[in-house]
Amino acid sequence: MFTYPSIALYLATVNAFYQDGVTHERFPMILPNPKDPTLTRSVQGTDQHGAVHDLRVVEERPLTIYLNSQEIVTAMTIGDHPEYLAIGFLRNQAMLRDDDEITCVDYDADLQVVVVRTSRKTSYEEKMRKKTRTSGCAVGTVFGDMMEGLETLTLPNAELRSSWLYSLSRQINTMPSLYLEAGAIHGTVLCQQDKPLIYMEDVGRHNAVDKVAGWMFQTGSTAADKILYTTGRLTSEMVIKTANMGIPVLASRSGFTAWGVEIAQQLNMTLIGRMRGKRFLCLSGQERLVLDADPETIPDETRASRSSGAK
Amino acid sequence: MFTYPSIALYLATVNAFYQDGVTHERFPMILPNPKDPTLTRSVQGTDQHGAVHDLRVVEERPLTIYLNSQEIVTAMTIGDHPEYLAIGFLRNQAMLRDDDEITCVDYDADLQVVVVRTSRKTSYEEKMRKKTRTSGCAVGTVFGDMMEGLETLTLPNAELRSSWLYSLSRQINTMPSLYLEAGAIHGTVLCQQDKPLIYMEDVGRHNAVDKVAGWMFQTGSTAADKILYTTGRLTSEMVIKTANMGIPVLASRSGFTAWGVEIAQQLNMTLIGRMRGKRFLCLSGQERLVLDADPETIPDETRASRSSGAK
Repeated sequence: MFTYPSIALYLATVNAFYQDGVTHERFPMILPNPKDPTLTRSVQGTDQHGAVHDLRVVEERPLTIYLNSQEIVTAMTIGDHPEYLAIGFLRNQAMLRDDDEITCVDYDADLQVVVVRTSRKTSYEEKMRKKTRTSGCAVGTVFGDMMEGLETLTLPNAELRSSWLYSLSRQINTMPSLYLEAGAIHGTVLCQQDKPLIYMEDVGRHNAVDKVAGWMFQTGSTAADKILYTTGRLTSEMVIKTANMGIPVLASRSGFTAWGVEIAQQLNMTLIGRMRGKRFLCLSGQERLVLDADPETIPDETRASRSSGAK
Repeated sequence: MFTYPSIALYLATVNAFYQDGVTHERFPMILPNPKDPTLTRSVQGTDQHGAVHDLRVVEERPLTIYLNSQEIVTAMTIGDHPEYLAIGFLRNQAMLRDDDEITCVDYDADLQVVVVRTSRKTSYEEKMRKKTRTSGCAVGTVFGDMMEGLETLTLPNAELRSSWLYSLSRQINTMPSLYLEAGAIHGTVLCQQDKPLIYMEDVGRHNAVDKVAGWMFQTGSTAADKILYTTGRLTSEMVIKTANMGIPVLASRSGFTAWGVEIAQQLNMTLIGRMRGKRFLCLSGQERLVLDADPETIPDETRASRSSGAK
């Protein structure tokens, strides 16, 4: 049931990336597809001089997620990888278990509905009631559920080298992406050492993370050797979500909240923030960070380079 | 029941602002209070050279909002103006009506609970059930409810001058704020012509808007002559929320989604995006925008100036 919008364009993007001079070990990847005509729309804007411009602007549409016969949530999403988004959302809400077998994922593009079907009979009426009480307007997803089992969670020790961080930043910031094409979008990249593996974008930063989680669940990807890179801020929820995915390293070009840092420290997570140009800050797990690169060899970011998670 | 954390520090901030050389008509204002010790925490971070830094980092804490005897939501918030956040959230969820009389707002700082009491008996069991089905992880609040009555809404025609936009940007970007102090936070400013009136910040951009809505509801502030400035992206939800507040002009230094622009056009809202330095884009209501300032007299933003809604 997994179909990609415009697979030809997707492959063209992948090839363009491999040919754009970035030396990169071949690896199964999902890259953004900025040329997918379903993901952006042409909008006219008038600038400060009164000149009219045609702009490419990211789409935003509701996607309703069902788990078997139960409607779970409607998410505002850019619309790509709906199956991964649905699976990842359900997974990150603890509605899909490790041992759950997904028998089918049906996506109806006209209705904007995706239905995830499992062998196990599921019923989350109680959880849904709880969600009503705990989902917060700043949280973006269900906080109460996400905290479940966190106290028993311990993340594996994982080495992190500063040379990987610099290499990942350079590759991610120069890859073709909807951000570079249209802006106003967040990105999340699943990485291994200095290799970006899966690069998902969405208008909601949590959707981008959920798409990565969905891919990991479907492919049985190991988490212990991965790094999660996000363009979004490192809030408590982002740290908890990453921990629940089993990923020991979380890095962002954006800032962080005090509680996000505190939880990362409690969970033995290596947390990197404000990763821009030669600069970064390690807020947690400093003892596992190896400074093997000379920052002075790394150029500062120019205004042309990515200026924020969602410009 | 309205109490501000550290009123002395708040007043000191206001005075500092008035004395910092920014010419400004005196006007009732609420400004950020970056010196409030309850809003930031000292966190140690290690930089790319291995040097340890003490950083001021914004707090993030849960606030549980009750309407009379019913628990409505738990929001992750920085923690200031809990009463305005609670009232504004309930207002923007259409749980408080125009004619509702608020008899009391009780805030318990230890429990992080705020209770809004009204003369009218309220019961939103049905609405809460609906919320369960419609609240999306990218939405940040309840989309279904927000759409209610939108088709009947028409916003008043409102003039907007480019000189106001430039003046507001300069004032907002140079005001003392938690963003400038610690980053990783969004700001929303209620403005009238070129005057910032109410400047709220929060880790959740929707919380910052809700705090402004709470202030407007409590003070009976008119909306037709106001401009809402936000550091966040102009998504469909942000446009809808602003429209429901009755404000005809929404401006942001960040980008926009296609649906956000489409809804603004349908609602006769003037929408300004990517407002940085001398640049801005008008996406909707162009006919009401008066270009009365020479962009060439406006300096470009430097890297020292605000670089994003949430760095």
